[in-house]
Amino acid sequence: MSPLIDPRILKGFRDFLPAAEIERRNLIERVEDVFRAFGFAPIDTPALEYTEVLFGKAGGETEKQVYRFTDNGGRDVALRFDLTVPLARFAAEHRAALRFPFKRYHIAKVWRGENTQRGRYREFTQCDFDCIGCDSAAADFEILLIMKEALTAADAPPFTMRLNHRGLFNRFLQTIDAAGKSTEILRIVDKLSKMGKDDVLRLLSAILDDKRARQVIDYIEPKGSWNETFEAITTAAGGDNPDSERLKTLRDFMIETETQDVFVLDPSITRGLDYYTGVVFETMLDDMPSIGSVCSGGRYDKLTGLYSKEALSGVGASVGLDRLIAALEAAGKTAKRETYADAAVICFDEAQAGAYQKIANRFREAGICCEVFFEAKKDSVQFARAEKKGIRWAIIEIANDTLILRDLATREDSEVLSISEAILLIKNSHKLNQNGHSALFVYRPR
Amino acid sequence: MSPLIDPRILKGFRDFLPAAEIERRNLIERVEDVFRAFGFAPIDTPALEYTEVLFGKAGGETEKQVYRFTDNGGRDVALRFDLTVPLARFAAEHRAALRFPFKRYHIAKVWRGENTQRGRYREFTQCDFDCIGCDSAAADFEILLIMKEALTAADAPPFTMRLNHRGLFNRFLQTIDAAGKSTEILRIVDKLSKMGKDDVLRLLSAILDDKRARQVIDYIEPKGSWNETFEAITTAAGGDNPDSERLKTLRDFMIETETQDVFVLDPSITRGLDYYTGVVFETMLDDMPSIGSVCSGGRYDKLTGLYSKEALSGVGASVGLDRLIAALEAAGKTAKRETYADAAVICFDEAQAGAYQKIANRFREAGICCEVFFEAKKDSVQFARAEKKGIRWAIIEIANDTLILRDLATREDSEVLSISEAILLIKNSHKLNQNGHSALFVYRPR
Repeated sequence: MSPLIDPRILKGFRDFLPAAEIERRNLIERVEDVFRAFGFAPIDTPALEYTEVLFGKAGGETEKQVYRFTDNGGRDVALRFDLTVPLARFAAEHRAALRFPFKRYHIAKVWRGENTQRGRYREFTQCDFDCIGCDSAAADFEILLIMKEALTAADAPPFTMRLNHRGLFNRFLQTIDAAGKSTEILRIVDKLSKMGKDDVLRLLSAILDDKRARQVIDYIEPKGSWNETFEAITTAAGGDNPDSERLKTLRDFMIETETQDVFVLDPSITRGLDYYTGVVFETMLDDMPSIGSVCSGGRYDKLTGLYSKEALSGVGASVGLDRLIAALEAAGKTAKRETYADAAVICFDEAQAGAYQKIANRFREAGICCEVFFEAKKDSVQFARAEKKGIRWAIIEIANDTLILRDLATREDSEVLSISEAILLIKNSHKLNQNGHSALFVYRPR
Repeated sequence: MSPLIDPRILKGFRDFLPAAEIERRNLIERVEDVFRAFGFAPIDTPALEYTEVLFGKAGGETEKQVYRFTDNGGRDVALRFDLTVPLARFAAEHRAALRFPFKRYHIAKVWRGENTQRGRYREFTQCDFDCIGCDSAAADFEILLIMKEALTAADAPPFTMRLNHRGLFNRFLQTIDAAGKSTEILRIVDKLSKMGKDDVLRLLSAILDDKRARQVIDYIEPKGSWNETFEAITTAAGGDNPDSERLKTLRDFMIETETQDVFVLDPSITRGLDYYTGVVFETMLDDMPSIGSVCSGGRYDKLTGLYSKEALSGVGASVGLDRLIAALEAAGKTAKRETYADAAVICFDEAQAGAYQKIANRFREAGICCEVFFEAKKDSVQFARAEKKGIRWAIIEIANDTLILRDLATREDSEVLSISEAILLIKNSHKLNQNGHSALFVYRPR
């Protein structure tokens, strides 16, 4: 017999055991439901692509972090490192088959050979949604609205969405004659929340004269209300222009939908990447700033530039699943259940598995997930097992079609019930959540 | 400017556009709902693992088909080629943290550098469910029941599940003194449905004398009813034994749950792989045999053998998603919708996007997916766009809180309705499906 192999996984990669995976699926499904409710459709693309296709856009820094190799057919291939480059390739390749504005979401794994010492993962799930082929305030606003609804559906702790316009910032840089250094300035300004004002000023002073460095600081510093900030940055950018007009329209839409309270106009938001050209936004958790932005994005105007001469603009955002899970855990909002089952049929006689499945099927048909236990251990052992898994109800068969329900939360037994009565008891015992749905896990209707 | 890059994907890989991806998600979610309803929990494992860990079990044939490379840290790594080896590694690594019997499902991508000329994909989604750490008829039967329920939930065309017991076959081989050639014989017998009886007999005669080759053919040939077949193979295997007992118990469970009509005892089913040791099963579509088995599996008893001295047995099956999609398409059962939205708010004034979102939110809150159109094109153009995407209802705003619903299926307009009336009209117009759920795509309650 050959020696045993150590069953270990690669550093930076993760196994998800049931409790963690249910938490993750639950978050993803809530967010996905919102995408679907807004008419955003899912797509999927290959995990592995030609290196040439993936690296068009990325600089040398990204390239080093990519899983790249030569396949058995001699092709230079790489694992995708984000979902934006594949979207660009996809949109260029299938342009004729897509209907624009094209509203899509994509939830899938990406891989980066990052330094795991910084607490980063080498494999993680990205969750992107974009509307492409449309440059309108309506599209920008819809992305913002979805962000708000998705985070609400995810039961995220209180959050604030910070918004800015890169075009307006560039107009301001032109008025102070610093447009040529736009990229470097943006990268420095992006560090404001991490480094503080003094350090940003010092960095800016290294590439601009002192006066202009201070003007940049004045521009990006918070001013109070949306309107005060709006007036100040519009004036600094040389007065009314299409970019300030866009911000004004977005504000109108917020007021119309009574969502203005979660949005803040913050001129220091730049989202680092050169990629963005219009509105940019990020979402901080009010009581957990150290977690960072849990949903960010912006408008861009050269999505397919590498693959096609026809420009395609768009606006989109990405939900930070790992950060949100961390926030939900910190807020004590995770269920830590190892199963979707709300009920378990207790086993008194292993030969009765057919009868137990028959009972369980009645509950399943009524939308109640129901496990059948196989081993006729002591009932206390079976109750403990169900409870540890997160199952609330133990089903104790009495005779054909009659049973006792034991509520493992209170350790109370019901009277002898028919199956229909038991189903009603379970359904009525679960509180309705905000959407008016039962807190039970149930079959998802379509 | 650098030259344009050709936006192409690797051969054997696929993009999924909205209609195809919605079909795929719909199938996966229906099947997944059944796994959850039975108390099976999801897990996830890394796409990339140490080659040594993945190759423990696989022979040289599989090895050639694997995407294997050296990562930037000098590690010998490979993309997973199935979900069974990762399950074995996972079970060995996390044994102390898992509760047995451990019922898990895993739906994830796998990669194989297969010859694409045979119509195979190099990237595809596997959908496995297993119950491990338990060797009982109850566990075997639960897997069979889930297979039946999952295929029913997936709206699969009429199907028959064929069942056999590898242990019983091996006992028969002992009685004819051919147990030493068990593996080769199993591989030949597995080809019966593809090659026919005469060719199988010829192949068997090459490794067995003529009399025993005919005895094998007699064993595997269909005998009529379950009971006739059962009696014949039990006698051929030397009379009652634990394996025939297992088959008898499974039959009792089928009768108890009134599911016996979809199961056939078929002694020619072997599922090729050496891996299986107990019951084996496959599922053929009655009217589409050429599609092959859409759900197969069996019982095995050395899952973690490579990584641990403690044996772990289990039983499981795998749903063939690509084959099922092909069958659903051939049966005209695919919806070909490009969106989950059932309604779209028509745009008459682009500045009203806020008001349109406000209306749409009312429908979304009621569980109706609703897109907002952004461009004030002619209404006929907008109706056509909605219809092509698979959206049935156009929402024509009349004033605050009043609207007209246009049914794009009949081209009829409603009277002027309040939003609540419109929601009711849409909900009542959609037929209920078998589970009593609306055929609408709606928010999935949890």
